[in-house]
Order: sequence, then structure tokens, then C-alpha cells
Amino acid sequence: MRSRYRTVLTDAETGIDRKSFSVDHEELDLGVSDAWRVVKYRLHGGLQEGVDVVEVFNGVLGFAVLPTRGMSILRGWYRDLDLGWDSPVKDPVHPAYVDLNDRGGLGWLKGFNEWIVRCGLDNNGAPGPDVVIDNNGNEASVFLPLHGKIANTPARHVAVEIDQDGTIAITGQVDETMMFGPALRLTTRISTRVGTNEVRIEDRITNLNRKRAELQLLYHCNYGGPILEEGARLVAPVKRVVPRDATAVEGLEKHDRFSGPTSGFVEQVYFYDLASRRGSSETLLLLRNQAGNVGSSLRYDKDALPCFTLWKNTAAREDGYVTGIEPATNFPNAKQFERDAGRVVTLRGKETRTFLLTVAAHQGRADVRSVEQEIARIQGNRKPRIQARPGGGYAPV
Amino acid sequence: MRSRYRTVLTDAETGIDRKSFSVDHEELDLGVSDAWRVVKYRLHGGLQEGVDVVEVFNGVLGFAVLPTRGMSILRGWYRDLDLGWDSPVKDPVHPAYVDLNDRGGLGWLKGFNEWIVRCGLDNNGAPGPDVVIDNNGNEASVFLPLHGKIANTPARHVAVEIDQDGTIAITGQVDETMMFGPALRLTTRISTRVGTNEVRIEDRITNLNRKRAELQLLYHCNYGGPILEEGARLVAPVKRVVPRDATAVEGLEKHDRFSGPTSGFVEQVYFYDLASRRGSSETLLLLRNQAGNVGSSLRYDKDALPCFTLWKNTAAREDGYVTGIEPATNFPNAKQFERDAGRVVTLRGKETRTFLLTVAAHQGRADVRSVEQEIARIQGNRKPRIQARPGGGYAPV
Amino acid sequence: MRSRYRTVLTDAETGIDRKSFSVDHEELDLGVSDAWRVVKYRLHGGLQEGVDVVEVFNGVLGFAVLPTRGMSILRGWYRDLDLGWDSPVKDPVHPAYVDLNDRGGLGWLKGFNEWIVRCGLDNNGAPGPDVVIDNNGNEASVFLPLHGKIANTPARHVAVEIDQDGTIAITGQVDETMMFGPALRLTTRISTRVGTNEVRIEDRITNLNRKRAELQLLYHCNYGGPILEEGARLVAPVKRVVPRDATAVEGLEKHDRFSGPTSGFVEQVYFYDLASRRGSSETLLLLRNQAGNVGSSLRYDKDALPCFTLWKNTAAREDGYVTGIEPATNFPNAKQFERDAGRVVTLRGKETRTFLLTVAAHQGRADVRSVEQEIARIQGNRKPRIQARPGGGYAPV
Repeated sequence: MRSRYRTVLTDAETGIDRKSFSVDHEELDLGVSDAWRVVKYRLHGGLQEGVDVVEVFNGVLGFAVLPTRGMSILRGWYRDLDLGWDSPVKDPVHPAYVDLNDRGGLGWLKGFNEWIVRCGLDNNGAPGPDVVIDNNGNEASVFLPLHGKIANTPARHVAVEIDQDGTIAITGQVDETMMFGPALRLTTRISTRVGTNEVRIEDRITNLNRKRAELQLLYHCNYGGPILEEGARLVAPVKRVVPRDATAVEGLEKHDRFSGPTSGFVEQVYFYDLASRRGSSETLLLLRNQAGNVGSSLRYDKDALPCFTLWKNTAAREDGYVTGIEPATNFPNAKQFERDAGRVVTLRGKETRTFLLTVAAHQGRADVRSVEQEIARIQGNRKPRIQARPGGGYAPV
Repeated sequence: MRSRYRTVLTDAETGIDRKSFSVDHEELDLGVSDAWRVVKYRLHGGLQEGVDVVEVFNGVLGFAVLPTRGMSILRGWYRDLDLGWDSPVKDPVHPAYVDLNDRGGLGWLKGFNEWIVRCGLDNNGAPGPDVVIDNNGNEASVFLPLHGKIANTPARHVAVEIDQDGTIAITGQVDETMMFGPALRLTTRISTRVGTNEVRIEDRITNLNRKRAELQLLYHCNYGGPILEEGARLVAPVKRVVPRDATAVEGLEKHDRFSGPTSGFVEQVYFYDLASRRGSSETLLLLRNQAGNVGSSLRYDKDALPCFTLWKNTAAREDGYVTGIEPATNFPNAKQFERDAGRVVTLRGKETRTFLLTVAAHQGRADVRSVEQEIARIQGNRKPRIQARPGGGYAPV
Repeated sequence: MRSRYRTVLTDAETGIDRKSFSVDHEELDLGVSDAWRVVKYRLHGGLQEGVDVVEVFNGVLGFAVLPTRGMSILRGWYRDLDLGWDSPVKDPVHPAYVDLNDRGGLGWLKGFNEWIVRCGLDNNGAPGPDVVIDNNGNEASVFLPLHGKIANTPARHVAVEIDQDGTIAITGQVDETMMFGPALRLTTRISTRVGTNEVRIEDRITNLNRKRAELQLLYHCNYGGPILEEGARLVAPVKRVVPRDATAVEGLEKHDRFSGPTSGFVEQVYFYDLASRRGSSETLLLLRNQAGNVGSSLRYDKDALPCFTLWKNTAAREDGYVTGIEPATNFPNAKQFERDAGRVVTLRGKETRTFLLTVAAHQGRADVRSVEQEIARIQGNRKPRIQARPGGGYAPV
């Protein structure tokens, strides 16, 4: 084969639009025995009408990318382990049906059912008012809805890239632009290597404008069962943890332990300052089940994503039994609060910022324990500082 | 034939999406002579691009279901009698073009041109603010637009079912769901029997969540000419009628009589408590033309749909000459008012509530008179109580 | 050939939907040597998914009509001269992705990248509150977003008409309607003659209702380079010019001269009362480059479009280096202000108003100079009145 196999699935500039596509180990010899494949299809019916899916399976680990929903990842699986969760929203929702400003700015929740979904790019976090400079040069009041636009913006370019070393990648380009407003381009490369347990998400965010732009980016990585269960744990190298609000204070002592499905449970949210590997800015954290024989880890550069949020929503299964582990440029408070706290990224004209997140699945006690040991080494003998109350600049009080 | 013929037209779970379809008396022998048929097609152009239509004709009565618009019924006809009305909105409007929150929450009116359209499921009625418990467990202010979401939500499952007894049914499933919000599923079966004058709408509304949910459901059944005309009448077994507002008070004496098209007419709305058949909760009402030789009746369970609203909008033909006869769980006031009046349904977790509405067309004086006599028997010698002013818990004053 | 060749590309009433189409000089003999053509295609990918384009080329001048975006004109070209501009919005945006009410009513800017786009029909101009009479006959507060709905409403009828005299026309019908609200129909004919340098836009706006309707219409004609450049000029027969605000006052002396791309430039807007040809209501104006060898002119009936606005946005190229020359029924202030100033058109029931705008491209000093001389004749020895401050009924102060 050529050193790199590349096929364009969607391209706004040339009008390419492949409704379906597949390539696999039988068609393309990568010198491996794994039965890998890439399949694209289009969904029909209800709110998912017209949503594209690109599924990648590396022989052991698979995931389904949604180009129509900003290159989110709907779900994943590793051998017989499901990665993702069950939302009351059953189908992937086409952005045409999502009114972000609905219900006081909570419209984003109408389409929320992904395993991994980006929140951003101009804003993420709680809905709230903001002040921007408008086309007249005046301050104008705008309302920023929950978690921003990127997850409800379809990709204008999608391609499959397969390298001789066994790397299978889906690339995508998503424009979050408007005249006189943010003009941010996400260029993502979501890849895995044949036979491995990892998905690697490499995102480049470019300010297309000459003028400065703000950027907020959060990776909302969501898990239900079987990883999430009574006694499941978050294992992370913690320097500091801060409860978001009074409800989080109630669960503070057990912030890293999870309950089983609990009808009427109200979400508990914790903000973390994580430690990174000595002499490096890499950090690592793990969500594992009670027995410690399945889990999923996130590995990333804490300099790029300094804020980590744990969202515990161990409600009844039918209501969405789920936890979100969320590395980000900021905490998911309203943008004004985050700006005042100095946690909103500014991009110069034409600047590109790169973010890299590696998500892995773990099966077997040995594999899980190995990750835990690595996290323990990052933690070292540092004592986590557990802040008893919200505030301290982490959350509004 | 098999005891039940069944074909799936749309299914989100399996990806079935039949753009066109037909079956008729020549293909399927029901042992009747009527030239019945079912035809599905997809609309194109303007705001109707991508809207699906499933037309059912039972040999004498026909109707056109819109799966894309929440299984509304666009129009009907019985022999040479048109059922429905002429709206300034000419084409069925795809939900992607409807911003419910537009114009102070009146965006629903951009797509309003159906014969029968459901208003609900989480809310219906006038737009207004509401307070809900949000994901943080806090009270949050939301704005609920006119008549809710269900009419602008496409069906995720649509099938045709034909029974050996001559029953032709279209079934549909429509999800009005969001994370942390209502998760209500409408499962509808819209059926008719070959050679009859009736459409039967059987709706099951399920709370998909474990937590409680509220439900509001109103069947907005709309008629213009030829049934609606100068001298047309509403015939109903009335226990009590209440004018909605001062404009309705002006027309109160003639609440059950209609004017011809009147330029500048301002809508008059009346709220009714109807009587039901002795020893039963079934009620029946009729809209008939002046001469009493054409009409359309509604028959339903008053326990399930205790509130009946008459919407008189006898404006100029071009502006929408129409009346709505509207059985519902509530009156179409803003939800907060209805909740305070105890007229919002609560569903327990996983609960399903069933609603049944039979709409019939009547031609010929004998047929119309027969319905009137049945209504007269329900009325008995009970005197309708005509409340002179709005209020009394029926409408805000 | 027949005296008039006519092909329907889209028709909501008959369900016609031609995804692609072409006709050219080889297929149809117009007795001319020019290699003219008409081509229709559908765009795919990202926010442009499903947007139709109809390109017309008359042998020397071409333009691309967007039926899906209200019959806007995406771009034009004349020989090697580009007509239009580069927006931070790269692709034509499907209306399903545009929430006009987003960001304080500035959602229109998410789709703004056309050469010529209509703003209207019920409202245009700055976002702002308005009071309308609602279905209950009461005054209701509504919010009118920037520039109205027409540019984000797909055409329900599109046809190609070619006459033996070499006229190539695209016709379109776009309905901006809702129950109880405006019901305005745009019927447009966008035409050119083979071998000429002109596009002729003939718009008829019909009030479909019996009741009165308001109308606002503005032609937002936008140019970047090469016509717009440092030293480019607006040449127009000016009776009066009024700066919109303090920022415009700063540039007032050079209101008719343009800067090169200037990072951080804040838009300057001027409102004009133009002169018309003696004994006629025709007016003419020109945008030309510094050297005066390329330009584009607008010719129209000042009685129909009495207000002319110049929008200078000579920002950095990446941020949208552009000027808008904008003939209109009104100035693009919020509708309430324009109504108070008597500049909102009222249509009687069923009334149709016609608007005609001819846009020409000019190449070569002789051609440009000839237009300038014609404008000079309209100006005569009338002195432009330059109002030093905003106000005087032209703009809010």
C-alpha cells in the first residue's frame, strides 16, 4: 500500500459527500492479523435523520464518530466492555433540531447522549449573560447557552487516514464562525492503532480572524455501567478538590466514590487541580469499577487543560445514570465567572492552539492496577487538599 | 393474507427509511369492494423540504399523516367533503425551520396549518414563564413557548398495519426528550376501517424517566369551509361555558354559532365543562354547517380529556378562517396557571397514560341529525350554565 | 426554440425537486455566439448541507443564486472581476443552522457571506423589541432579530426562463408567513441578458393576508477586493448624508472614500438621501476602485427604495473586509425607530409592491468614467448637505 491511505468522506469545498463507505483489513494489508475496519453510514428517522456516523474498529477497540455533531464520539467499546452511557435521549440528534437557547439556555441537553463530546469553542459551561463588543464597537449584552455551539455544528471536511504502522484516523474540520463574532476552526484527528486499547484525540483550534478571540474547551467524557456502579472510583493525582455547591459539599468525603443508581439523586460536581508527572505536564486519571477489573483512563497535558471537573449524576438508570470526567481549559461555570478567574484562553489573530487527549479502556485487574500505580506515582506523597466549601475562585458562592 | 399485514416505513433503531411506499386493495385482499389505499411520499421545496406524508384512504374517507411533524394530520376528506382549513401557511413546515421561541414564544404559528395537531407534551397553551427544578436541584426559570414541542418533533418509528377486519392503521413513535428534562414518548395509532366515516386516534404517552413527569395534551382539531360558514354551529352537551376574556364575553350569547369570514375579527375562545353519557365518561360533540347537512364530530373519554376549548377565528378567508374544537387535559392557558388550577397531569416514573379520540365526518341531514340527537340525549334536560365573565379558575382574569 | 424556454427546478405544490440541472448555448440556440449556461447543483458538507445553487453565466457575467437562502446571490463575476467578498463564514449556511434570535438577535450573522442579500420582509435592521397585535387582539411584545427572516427562508418555487432575446432569468417564490403574523410572499425574477454586464433583480412582495401588513426591504450589496481597496470611492448623487453614530462622525469627511484593510476598524455607517434623475425617480450610484478601472453600480427607483445606507467595514481581510451599499425602503435602524420616522411600508390586504434593482459590473476606465459622468449629471450643481451629527430623524441619538 501507499505509505498513507487517505479517503475523503465529506468536503464542503469540492462537494464530496459519501453517504456510505467502508474499508477493512481484507481490502488494505497493514501486516497485522487484527480484523480492523472503518465504516460510514447515515442515520434515518426521527431526530437522527441525516446524522452521519463513522465507526472505527481496531480489532479490539471501536468507537463511533459523529461528523454531523461536531466530531463527537457517540459510543465506544473494548472487547466486551461498553464505553458510554444510556441517556433519556435515545438517538443521536441532528443539530437542526437543537435550539441551544431553549429552556433558559439548556437546549444542548436535547442532544446529549455521547460518550465524548466537546463543549466550546467560544464558550462552555453554565448558561449566562456575557458582554461582547458588537459590530458598532459598543458593549452588547448576549446570552451564552450551556456548553456552546461546537457539538451542534457539522463537520465541513471528514477524511479517513490509515498509516502503514497501523494507525487508523478520522480527521475532521468544524467551523464555529459568524461575521463580527467568533471565527474558530476545530481541526481534529481522532485515531487509534490496530490492536490497542486507546483513542487519541488531537484537536487544533484556530482563530480564523485577525482580531483576538476567546476559547473555551472541555472534553465531556461520560460513563455509565458497567464501569460506573456502586463502589466505582475515580483515581486521580489530586492536589486540590473543591465542591461546586452545597450539594457537592454533602458528598465531599466520598467525592471519589460512586453510588449505584439512586432515584432522585441530584448531581454533585467537583473541581480539581490535578498533579502532573514530575518534570512533565502530563497527567493521568482513571475511572474504575468496584472490583477494579474494568476502567477507562484519560491522559493529557495539564498545561493545555489545567482544569478537571468530575460530574457525578448517579440518578436512576432511566434518568441517566452517568458520570462525566472532564478535562478542560476552564471549569464549567458561566463564562463571565471563568473570565474573571483568568481561565478563558485568548487566541491571537490566526493563532492555533493544540490539545491532545488519550482515552484508554482497561480490562483485567492487572491492567487497571497498572494504571492506578502510575497515578499513585504521580500523586507521590502529596496530600490532596480537600476544600470544605465552594469558592476560592473555583466556583461562584 | 396474514392476519395482520405490517410494514415499517421508518425506524431509527434499524435505520429503515422508505421514501415512498404504497399498498392498496389490489395488492391486498381484505374481502371488501372499497378501493382503499395507503401511500407514502416525501415533500420537496421551500419549508416543506423533507417532510414525509402518509396518506390513508379507506374507500370513502382519507387523511394525510405527517410523521415529520409529530404524527399530526395535515388534512382529511370524506367523499367530497374537505376536512381541515386554509392557513396563510401554505405548505407543511419542516420542524428544522420552526423556532418555537421566536416572537415571544409564538414560533409554533409558523408551521400551523393542520387539520388535527397535538399540543404538548410537556406543555401546551399560551407561552409563559415557568419554574422547573434544574440539574443542580435548584429552581430555574424557563420560558415555555406556545403549544410545546410535539408537533415539531419527527417520528422515530412509523409503520402501516392492516388487519383482516378492514382496519388500516398508521403507527408512530415520537420522543420528546432531553437530559434533565421531560422524557415523554408518544406512541400513536391512527386508524380507520374500510368504508367508514371515522378516524380513530389512540395515543399512549409514556414517561421514560424513573422520576415523575408532567403532561399536557390538547388535540387542536381545525375546520374551515365548507363545514364552517355563517350559521354553522357547535353542538355539544354543555354543563358550563366560560368566556376566556373580554372579547369572548362580547360573543358569549352566540358562543355556539359562527359568523362568516369577517375581516378584522379577533379570536373568541370559550372553555367548556361538557357532560358525558349517563353511566359512562364518553362525550360527543359536533361541528355542523348552517343547513345541517355536513359536519364533523369528536367522541372521547371525558375522564382522560376533561377540558374542552372552542377557538373561534372567523377572520377573513385569507387570514385563516377557522375554528378549533379542542379536547384536552387542560385549558390552553399558560402552564403555571393550569398547574395552579390542578389541571396538569402528573405521570409517575415509567407510567403510560392512554388517550382515545374518534373523529368522524358526517354527510346528509340524517347522519348529522342522528349525531345531534345523541348529543341531546347526553345533554338531557340539564341546563348549560353560561358564566358571564372570565375567571372562576378557568381563565386568568 | 419556443418563444420562451421554461424549466421548473423546484415546486412545492407539485413536488418537483431537481437536484441538478443544466442548459447552455449548445443545447439552446439563442442566435448569439456567447457561451452562456445555467447550472444547478446541491452543496454538501458542514453547514451548507442541502443548500441549492443556481449559477447563471451570460458569456461574460455570472452569478450564483441560493434558492435555499431566500434567493440571495452568493457571488458574482464579470470577466476576471470578482463581485462579492470574503467572509469569516466560509460556506453558504443552510437556514436550519441559523437561530436568528441567538446572541441578542444577531444570529443572522452566522450565515452572512453573500454578495447580495435581502433583509426583510417583515423587518430588517438592528435587532430590537417591537409591539404587535397578537391573536387575542392585545398588544404583545416581540423581539425582532437583525435583518429578518427572508434570507433564511428557502424558495418554494424556482424556475429557469430563457427568452429568444437572450434574457436568462431565475424566478423564485419565497413565503415568509405565519398564522396571526406576517404573510408576505416574495416573487423574484433575477435576470441578465447574454453578453451584458448587468443583473436585474425584480421583486414583487405580496401581502397574502386580507389584513394590512408592514414591509421592510433592504438590498445588502457587499463588496470586498478588488473593487474595495485603499482609495476606493463611493460615487453617488447625494442630497444629504447623515452619520449613524459617533464612530461614523469620525470618518464623516471621508465618508465616500475607503481605507485598506485595517485591523480593529469599527464599522462606519452613513445614511443618505440620494438625488434622482431630473423628471424621473431613477437613481444611480457606483462603487469604484482607486484607479477607477473597475467598479459596480446600482440603478433603481428611488421612490420605491428611498433610503440608501453605506456600511463601511474596512477591517482586516480575515475579519471581513467589506462595504455594503444598501438601497432600501428604510434605514437599518430597529423597526420601532423606523416606524416612528414613517419609513415602514404598509401593504393593504392582497397588495403587491414591486421593486427593481439593476446591478452592473464595470471594467475599464471608459466604462467606469461613463457611469461617473451619468451620476454627475444627476448630481448637477446640487451641493451635498453633510449633517455633522447623527439624528434629524435618520438615526437614534
